[in-house]
Amino acid sequence: MAETTVPQVGGEPEQGEQMYEGKAKKVFATSDPDLCIVSYKDDATAFNGKKHGQILGKGEINNRVSNHLMRLLEADGIRTHLVKELGPRDTLVRRVQIVPLEVIVRNIVAGSMSQRLGVLEGTKLPQPVLEYSYKCDVLDDPLVNDSHIIALGWATRDELDTISALALRINTLLQGHLDAAGIILVDFKLEFGRLPDGEIILADEISPDTCRFWDKATGAKLDKDRFRRDLGGVEQAYAEVRRRLLGTAA
Amino acid sequence: MAETTVPQVGGEPEQGEQMYEGKAKKVFATSDPDLCIVSYKDDATAFNGKKHGQILGKGEINNRVSNHLMRLLEADGIRTHLVKELGPRDTLVRRVQIVPLEVIVRNIVAGSMSQRLGVLEGTKLPQPVLEYSYKCDVLDDPLVNDSHIIALGWATRDELDTISALALRINTLLQGHLDAAGIILVDFKLEFGRLPDGEIILADEISPDTCRFWDKATGAKLDKDRFRRDLGGVEQAYAEVRRRLLGTAA
Repeated sequence: MAETTVPQVGGEPEQGEQMYEGKAKKVFATSDPDLCIVSYKDDATAFNGKKHGQILGKGEINNRVSNHLMRLLEADGIRTHLVKELGPRDTLVRRVQIVPLEVIVRNIVAGSMSQRLGVLEGTKLPQPVLEYSYKCDVLDDPLVNDSHIIALGWATRDELDTISALALRINTLLQGHLDAAGIILVDFKLEFGRLPDGEIILADEISPDTCRFWDKATGAKLDKDRFRRDLGGVEQAYAEVRRRLLGTAA
Repeated sequence: MAETTVPQVGGEPEQGEQMYEGKAKKVFATSDPDLCIVSYKDDATAFNGKKHGQILGKGEINNRVSNHLMRLLEADGIRTHLVKELGPRDTLVRRVQIVPLEVIVRNIVAGSMSQRLGVLEGTKLPQPVLEYSYKCDVLDDPLVNDSHIIALGWATRDELDTISALALRINTLLQGHLDAAGIILVDFKLEFGRLPDGEIILADEISPDTCRFWDKATGAKLDKDRFRRDLGGVEQAYAEVRRRLLGTAA
């Protein structure tokens, strides 16, 4: 099924050296300079790395869920880094130069927006809010606006216009897919990358690590907030998201 | 001279009850419901009120400097709240509903932008940076972006387009006037208000309290950073700004 969105590549490239290890993923070079392998870990962190833990099975779930959602987006014309799922935790992706921004889309107020702006968590926004954070651990990923991004050269005006339009379109598409699975998309974080020709495509992941998912019927949290806030049932929540999106046999 | 920018009003209205006392100004109602009197204080605060002090003569200087700069802006077609200087510390202004945003324009990186984004103070920006903070002391005036402002109803899209265009035009005009006085306009904060008919005009003040002014020849700070950072010569710096803009006799 994944094959429908796989671009034409030659034989499968061989895994090479580890290029990078992040909080939740490792990235490996491959024998093809245009492709990498992402390997999802069970490690969980929160509050910019101040809280550490493990969520058993998370790596496999995030790999499957993220690839599933990216395939759905590809079917709607959104270009993503996804090439091919290679194994339970491993996925072949296009190599991109990551734009150093966390692109956050919010439909309902939660988390840092609630705290920073004094708005009650759960407040429905009359229109989506789009935020950018500069990806920089030592600065705690500070909130930035268009004029910071352009003046400091992190993206051009054209790139930012593309990114904001893509982020809002992805929001609309994901809301539909998740609603059909009984899940409210509260907010989520995206990252984008540049291909060698300059095209901006969706990269990184879309998973319970990077989204707030609330159960449509009960309001229960089905995402990393269960880990951040010590709510218990963390593994069960991740498994429930996979079950709803991919079926029990997934 | 001030008369050239004074709109047609009847006799001078009488001062009424105090409506508001801020960190650096008091505002009084008048017998005309469309007008207020602003009275500038010598009190100085920094770091959102965490540091307190007095800068002798500041009230008079800020009143004169702000009115002078607003008159120059009026001459270039920028509508402001200024009606008439009534005395050394007191000015008659139009009553507006303040848009709850601090509108910050930056030409050179300094202060909070330097700290938040890890960019060296003094770095020249290739184009002006425009920031908005939500005016809310208990939240520490958090940085917000267009989508927060519109979604939370602090200003409409049209109002924000007007405000951003005005702020950038004011920046260009002020840079010219200050450059002629041997002063570099590093950054500054503006506030805007709505007239009863919805028109957005410049309100608040433009002074060494609300701007960073650096001496063009020496780079010396001629603004509230001397107070914030305990650099000494605070009163002298304020007086120097008045002297350069208004002449010694001012």
